[in-house]
Amino acid sequence: MSEPLRIGIAGLGTVGAEVFKQLSINNAYLSQRGGRPLEVTAVSARDRTKDRGVEIADRLWVENPAAMAASDNVDVVIELIGGSEGVAKEFVEAALDRGKHVVTGNKALVAVHGTDLARRSSANGAAFYYESAVAGGIPIVKALREGLTANQIHRMYGILNGTCNYILTKMDATGQSFEDVLKEAQELGYAEADPSFDVGGIDAAHKICILSAIAFGTEVDFDGIFCEGISTITPLDLSFGREFGYRLKLLAIAEKAEDGVLQRVHPAFIKLSAPLADVDDVYNAVVAEGDLVGRTVYEGRGAGSGPTTSAVLADLIDIAQGNLLPMFLKPADELAPTQRADIGNRTGTFYLRLQVLDRAGVLAKIAQLLSIEEISIDSMVQRSRNPDSMVSVVLVTHETSEARMSRALSAIADLKEVVAPPCMIRIEEF
Amino acid sequence: MSEPLRIGIAGLGTVGAEVFKQLSINNAYLSQRGGRPLEVTAVSARDRTKDRGVEIADRLWVENPAAMAASDNVDVVIELIGGSEGVAKEFVEAALDRGKHVVTGNKALVAVHGTDLARRSSANGAAFYYESAVAGGIPIVKALREGLTANQIHRMYGILNGTCNYILTKMDATGQSFEDVLKEAQELGYAEADPSFDVGGIDAAHKICILSAIAFGTEVDFDGIFCEGISTITPLDLSFGREFGYRLKLLAIAEKAEDGVLQRVHPAFIKLSAPLADVDDVYNAVVAEGDLVGRTVYEGRGAGSGPTTSAVLADLIDIAQGNLLPMFLKPADELAPTQRADIGNRTGTFYLRLQVLDRAGVLAKIAQLLSIEEISIDSMVQRSRNPDSMVSVVLVTHETSEARMSRALSAIADLKEVVAPPCMIRIEEF
Repeated sequence: MSEPLRIGIAGLGTVGAEVFKQLSINNAYLSQRGGRPLEVTAVSARDRTKDRGVEIADRLWVENPAAMAASDNVDVVIELIGGSEGVAKEFVEAALDRGKHVVTGNKALVAVHGTDLARRSSANGAAFYYESAVAGGIPIVKALREGLTANQIHRMYGILNGTCNYILTKMDATGQSFEDVLKEAQELGYAEADPSFDVGGIDAAHKICILSAIAFGTEVDFDGIFCEGISTITPLDLSFGREFGYRLKLLAIAEKAEDGVLQRVHPAFIKLSAPLADVDDVYNAVVAEGDLVGRTVYEGRGAGSGPTTSAVLADLIDIAQGNLLPMFLKPADELAPTQRADIGNRTGTFYLRLQVLDRAGVLAKIAQLLSIEEISIDSMVQRSRNPDSMVSVVLVTHETSEARMSRALSAIADLKEVVAPPCMIRIEEF
Repeated sequence: MSEPLRIGIAGLGTVGAEVFKQLSINNAYLSQRGGRPLEVTAVSARDRTKDRGVEIADRLWVENPAAMAASDNVDVVIELIGGSEGVAKEFVEAALDRGKHVVTGNKALVAVHGTDLARRSSANGAAFYYESAVAGGIPIVKALREGLTANQIHRMYGILNGTCNYILTKMDATGQSFEDVLKEAQELGYAEADPSFDVGGIDAAHKICILSAIAFGTEVDFDGIFCEGISTITPLDLSFGREFGYRLKLLAIAEKAEDGVLQRVHPAFIKLSAPLADVDDVYNAVVAEGDLVGRTVYEGRGAGSGPTTSAVLADLIDIAQGNLLPMFLKPADELAPTQRADIGNRTGTFYLRLQVLDRAGVLAKIAQLLSIEEISIDSMVQRSRNPDSMVSVVLVTHETSEARMSRALSAIADLKEVVAPPCMIRIEEF
């Protein structure tokens, strides 16, 4: 066997501790996969004394991540600190600048600073691998960057946030409100105390912009993503959707449009027969469509220490094997800025739920405002009819553009009979 | 860029012609992926004059595959001749023995001679890649060998034959007989003129024994596979299955049992909610279960020139990049023979359909024969009751072993009231 690969682990939370543990108890097995000994030579975490369920020798501890990045005794660092700025960013930059390979599960860091990191990685001949940052244990980065590398990818989409998928699955099954299910999810550990990154779609946006950069060979463009979360979804929408033959999912989509790449994260209705309609609970799934391969689907657990560790170790083994590829599909100096498509040009059908006062002529006014934008109605359902009280009107439109829908919606919202902000959900035909 | 990778293509059927075409029209793109020019320097096929929809320069033609294997002008050969013996085998062996890398889509060759080929590959420092041999465009070999490499895989199973999946989907949807749908499939080009490899399960067996060798790091063991095809399945079984909440699929399964590795291909009922229940038509899908990652699912087209070409080119690009791994998970000299598990020890529940004469006491006799083997009945359905005529009796059993079921079945088959061979289908609880 060749020289050992010397590994530093920064961040010893659940994942960091599991990575360390696997590298201890399964060292012979993993070293065989890597073709050389895998040796942890440094660790760093805020609290040395915490019980992590595994023995960590005193000699491995370094003062802080900066000391690990500077160490002559480390070839590759595993960054599991988290966060797009501060300690994690400085650590990873310092490591790359000293020619150390980096393995990370930090989606925010890659999404926000990926292009700069790709350039540093390339300039210093140090690999930057991040399989665990997207869709947990599903080897989707490898599939895209290597398995489907001969394809022109025209679209990819997925369920990339397990918390949202759990919440939507639960709301659908029980009819509970978003707030109630979120609270339960927090108690079960499926949602963070501050759930805004998850339920607001930010986490899924981080992930799709990473996949988009790989698929289309562009710079990462987190700022260019259209993003809507799930907090305004009600059980009523889920049950209306079912009546129309749809399931609701928080989708992350990156696709080539006529005017550029369209990246978006939002709740979407998909047909019961669509590839992702059955992906429930905390599972993640990604669909990648290529010119040669057609549609491929990848499904697995999106989070948790086991799946994340699986992906971190696969990256480590790739580096040990010398399988060192550019961070995104192309060499860093060939990455071009993402040409952003205007979501206003997107066309599709839409689900609208309006809370209106049940008075004569309201539907006529709504239909009139839609017709001004040449939007025609495919079907309509009205519920709980009580004269002069509130009623839910649900419409599904024929195909129209986002720009038209958006103008029609703001006119509808201004009607005095419309008593709550309209709920609009995109319908995706896959 | 570095030295060109010089490529020879042997076999210019639909796939070979598409590979050649892609390497012509997308050469710059593919060469960038490979990090060096990809240059076709030799081609060979039985008929030079056939119209393949792409211009092939005269200077590229070599006399025969043997001449290509011997050529000093070729670094890697792509074998698309097919068949486990004869020309394809001799060609690949000769190429490896001269240190040429091999890319192939030949599942029969890898399934039957994989262990020897792995040793030749290793002895000559020549890679042997075969992504396109299993599940077409789905990068499952890469996922298993690299993406999930840190996992101990305990089970994998899949729908690996598109022809059978198309036939079963169609029978289920239309109620047509196996024979009628097969004929249609042949007319549509979804089934071969001689369909025995597909409908007999041999093709799926070739593929699962390859995946088994990668997952478990063993020699390939094609002879050790238990294999049953789909030709005895009737629309009646599909509709009875639906009543019990099942879909019928031809599954290929490799799993670690107490007494070794159990490899099997047979029709199986799976719950409507199981991961593969919705995989229809010519789609393939594979489930791989690892200790860290849990359940992962991969789905895509299992055949066709586009998906197969996608996989062939991915292998080629890996070789161009110098990403050269052992053929199966472990170095060739560490591959151990597969310890075969006895299928008789497998336990599960079973679906039995019996054609019996509708006479008093028949069911009592059947129940008695099952009880001798301590097999208890979970549910029973009887159809088209006409005294003294034939009736279909369908039973679903509680859990029992294959050995017991097999003994009970042969006793039941011997009853004079049982007028046709019993149909037994395994139920898999995923």
